[in-house]
Amino acid sequence: MDIINLKKKLSLFDEYWTPKVLGELNGQQVKLAKLKGAFIWHSHEHEDELFYILNGTLKMEFRDKTLTLREGDMLIVPRGVEHRPIAEEEVHVMLFEPAGTKHTGKIEHELTKNDQEWI
Amino acid sequence: MDIINLKKKLSLFDEYWTPKVLGELNGQQVKLAKLKGAFIWHSHEHEDELFYILNGTLKMEFRDKTLTLREGDMLIVPRGVEHRPIAEEEVHVMLFEPAGTKHTGKIEHELTKNDQEWI
Repeated sequence: MDIINLKKKLSLFDEYWTPKVLGELNGQQVKLAKLKGAFIWHSHEHEDELFYILNGTLKMEFRDKTLTLREGDMLIVPRGVEHRPIAEEEVHVMLFEPAGTKHTGKIEHELTKNDQEWI
Repeated sequence: MDIINLKKKLSLFDEYWTPKVLGELNGQQVKLAKLKGAFIWHSHEHEDELFYILNGTLKMEFRDKTLTLREGDMLIVPRGVEHRPIAEEEVHVMLFEPAGTKHTGKIEHELTKNDQEWI
């Protein structure tokens, strides 16, 4: 049982769109990610996904609207809902989702990371 | 699907030790709480519990040690582990735990809140 400091963890990697696992509880994982640029359209069939913005501004595109998330904002994207995150400038986010959730959903893409990396 | 701003939500209540539900996903809830003073010793039989410090300093006492959590720190307290949060000054925390988790665990205490309040 260790204290996890998010700023310290953020200093340990630079890659974008590669969520790192911070911890696991009740079958869920907390992850940390750096985002920049546009991700791909995807959805998660069986998993709701929480985004919490640590810093920066993230646009979340949905098929019918776009939400703009800023530092201290949280958004829960329900399972099945197609979304596309876009970060014009670098954004740091904390994610909360079931263990095993793939960040590109069912889509296999060059951005898809199949290995879970803990940090 | 709405943006949840934590600062705004924190401005909506003043009571200590009364976690408010911000959202639910995958059978888990995200909660917000203001803490001040010492809570009671308790454990959660079947639930791991995540604490994320939004601001302030929280001491988490365990039977064999005490951890000091500061802004940006996260701690996962595994199920079954007795703990007692102590906030010398006001602390704001985000909690993540299974829906239905009681903050005093199995203990019925004057601090126990049986009603879940969403915010």
